[in-house]
Amino acid sequence: MSVIRMTYRIETAGDVEKLAAKIASDQSTGTFVSLPGETPELKARVAARVVAIRPLEALEVPSIPDPSAPAGAIYRRADVDIDFPIEAIGTDLAALMTISIGGVYSIKGFSGIRVTGMQLPEAFTAAYPGPQFGMAGTRRLTGVEDRPVIGSIVKPALGLRPPESAEQVRELVEAEVDFIKDDEKLTSPAYSSLEDRVKAIMPVILDHEQKTGKKVMYAFGISHSDPDEMMRNHDIVVRAGGNAAVININSVGLGGLSFLRKRSHLALHAHRNGWDILTRHPGLGMDFEVYQQFWRLLGIDQFQINGIRAKYWESDDSFIRSFKAVTTPLFEGDVCPVPVVCSGQWGGQAPDTYARTGKTVDLLYLCGGGVVSHPGGPAAGVRAVRQAWQAAVEGVPLETYAREHHELAQSLQKFGADASAS
Amino acid sequence: MSVIRMTYRIETAGDVEKLAAKIASDQSTGTFVSLPGETPELKARVAARVVAIRPLEALEVPSIPDPSAPAGAIYRRADVDIDFPIEAIGTDLAALMTISIGGVYSIKGFSGIRVTGMQLPEAFTAAYPGPQFGMAGTRRLTGVEDRPVIGSIVKPALGLRPPESAEQVRELVEAEVDFIKDDEKLTSPAYSSLEDRVKAIMPVILDHEQKTGKKVMYAFGISHSDPDEMMRNHDIVVRAGGNAAVININSVGLGGLSFLRKRSHLALHAHRNGWDILTRHPGLGMDFEVYQQFWRLLGIDQFQINGIRAKYWESDDSFIRSFKAVTTPLFEGDVCPVPVVCSGQWGGQAPDTYARTGKTVDLLYLCGGGVVSHPGGPAAGVRAVRQAWQAAVEGVPLETYAREHHELAQSLQKFGADASAS
Repeated sequence: MSVIRMTYRIETAGDVEKLAAKIASDQSTGTFVSLPGETPELKARVAARVVAIRPLEALEVPSIPDPSAPAGAIYRRADVDIDFPIEAIGTDLAALMTISIGGVYSIKGFSGIRVTGMQLPEAFTAAYPGPQFGMAGTRRLTGVEDRPVIGSIVKPALGLRPPESAEQVRELVEAEVDFIKDDEKLTSPAYSSLEDRVKAIMPVILDHEQKTGKKVMYAFGISHSDPDEMMRNHDIVVRAGGNAAVININSVGLGGLSFLRKRSHLALHAHRNGWDILTRHPGLGMDFEVYQQFWRLLGIDQFQINGIRAKYWESDDSFIRSFKAVTTPLFEGDVCPVPVVCSGQWGGQAPDTYARTGKTVDLLYLCGGGVVSHPGGPAAGVRAVRQAWQAAVEGVPLETYAREHHELAQSLQKFGADASAS
Repeated sequence: MSVIRMTYRIETAGDVEKLAAKIASDQSTGTFVSLPGETPELKARVAARVVAIRPLEALEVPSIPDPSAPAGAIYRRADVDIDFPIEAIGTDLAALMTISIGGVYSIKGFSGIRVTGMQLPEAFTAAYPGPQFGMAGTRRLTGVEDRPVIGSIVKPALGLRPPESAEQVRELVEAEVDFIKDDEKLTSPAYSSLEDRVKAIMPVILDHEQKTGKKVMYAFGISHSDPDEMMRNHDIVVRAGGNAAVININSVGLGGLSFLRKRSHLALHAHRNGWDILTRHPGLGMDFEVYQQFWRLLGIDQFQINGIRAKYWESDDSFIRSFKAVTTPLFEGDVCPVPVVCSGQWGGQAPDTYARTGKTVDLLYLCGGGVVSHPGGPAAGVRAVRQAWQAAVEGVPLETYAREHHELAQSLQKFGADASAS
């Protein structure tokens, strides 16, 4: 029988085995032990089953404070594999989230609980569209080959009126950037409604395409809590000749993304804001490897995952794990989303990024300040980032490469002292 | 100018004031300090502003482990109020979630961050439908007055085929329960598709209505990650004469609920599975008081919030806070959702529930095992719960009341030894 295998990292002052069994019981037939309806045939159909318990080192300090703990209490930990029959859950991602993840967090007796693994059976791949564009589609739409797609962000994040945003876009397209996006915080406030912003920005993109043949991909912030509104926003972008959108996936939810993707003509650039609270504490929440599967099945095309020396809390090791997760097919032959390397990037991280991600250039490298705040202006900023990637691919140290590449030298001077650009 | 006031409980080994300022800056104009576009006029339009910092006692153990901490490090804490101009965010809840909550969790330097308050301006009340039924509508649809609406749940949670579910429903409606629901884990698996389940159960509900005039409210699990599918499920229930649905709000997301509510003819019974991980650690995530506002604006009618001596991790005090949050209008004159008191309830908690929630009977009191596992069967179980509530309202101790009320006496004997029914 086909199963969904979940892995939980559990932590408790009590008995690890009992809690593992409780997850399996609570999340399938329920908590009753003596109901007449709970026949062996029913259990065979839907009961979840603990298949492995791998003990881990105990902790002295619980992940969730335990004011009632006696002195010297220790908190046992284990990685627990539980198999859920596919018949119990089906292939709906909301049911999967409810049964195998959501409900688990409510169980009493944990001082820590983290979902660290999820292996879905083949049935899921047929049930979902997956990415519409992915890396191949993003390369086709941007015309960029054999190097990372270089992106930038209109800043400040909020407050610019559409003509001011368009002016920055003009500078960026003239700088030969490949991709530009709205900050994820910008969707459709009164001072910069999506419609007005599209009207101001798309002519700049299309004029540049007319003149140079290069169509810069612009991802507009179309997120809205109402899927009908989000579709209206989508249509505004499509009608104006746009080809991408920023989606705040946690804010619109599985339902919002599902609705949009079925009807979408745009490359969907996922921003995961809000995600951090689900993963920042190592004993709680969820690994990115699990979380990303939901959004990939639903069909995002580009996935923001931070970068080396990000300006946020996330460590380089965590970013590398995310990169590997996003670029590994969930099922044989499926399309992966584009890993979007971002947050404090300026080119200085190109060598480490290249070395630690398996020497690939299949990524979108997104630099905000690293492009816009370059001393020579955005065009120099873009050139500096490309130079940094050339150096990385050729295996030449940035300092060496900078001797012959002025813009990179300027970048090193401005951003090199810091760990990162902002 | 109209503002959204957020309160954050922040914790850091660094400087509380600096981190407060960083939230305000990161979540509005961005992290740049020297951008030409960031004019005073722009700042006035969108900049968030720290308006109060209330220091709290420092911690010796950080909420998120800090392996690099020197010996004797302490973690400063404060409650910080930050005002966001409504013009920066607008009234879209996805934008609100992204800007004032989601993005905050990514900021470096916190060892703890919890959103503890959110005061929305009036503009939000006009922008959202709110509950369609609430307590008045639930009373009208169930015909229950002057006492709590008494509910039960078909169990086991998963595995019953539709005729088996219908058989249990028959027992429950004959027991004169007011409300029945699918377990939240049950939506539309192959062995019990929603369509087949509705076909099996609704005739039982309608026959009982024909015979007795009492229409039991049945909440079917219609959640689906795809809003179109969820609407199809909704329509199946409506066409069969049903009047309620269970929605797994976190699993369908703001988008899913928004789409459904705009078109809904059903009382929407919200299950918040998954929520616990956002609130269980007191230094991380979000207070229920903040979280519930999103779902209330979108329009859920009934909100599960656990109960006294719940079988889950949540404390009684936390439940009482949730009850008060759900039953307090967000804006003058608006409709509140029904507080659904649940989890391990059997009537034994009626006196404490009544006393601690301000002596109200405006609630849905949901007993699974507390009804179904009663020694005299479900009918006796329902009578026992009603008796417990009568005793609570009359201020008579349950043991005294049980002398003249056999079913309550049986309940006390079976469930009274435990803290709760399962």
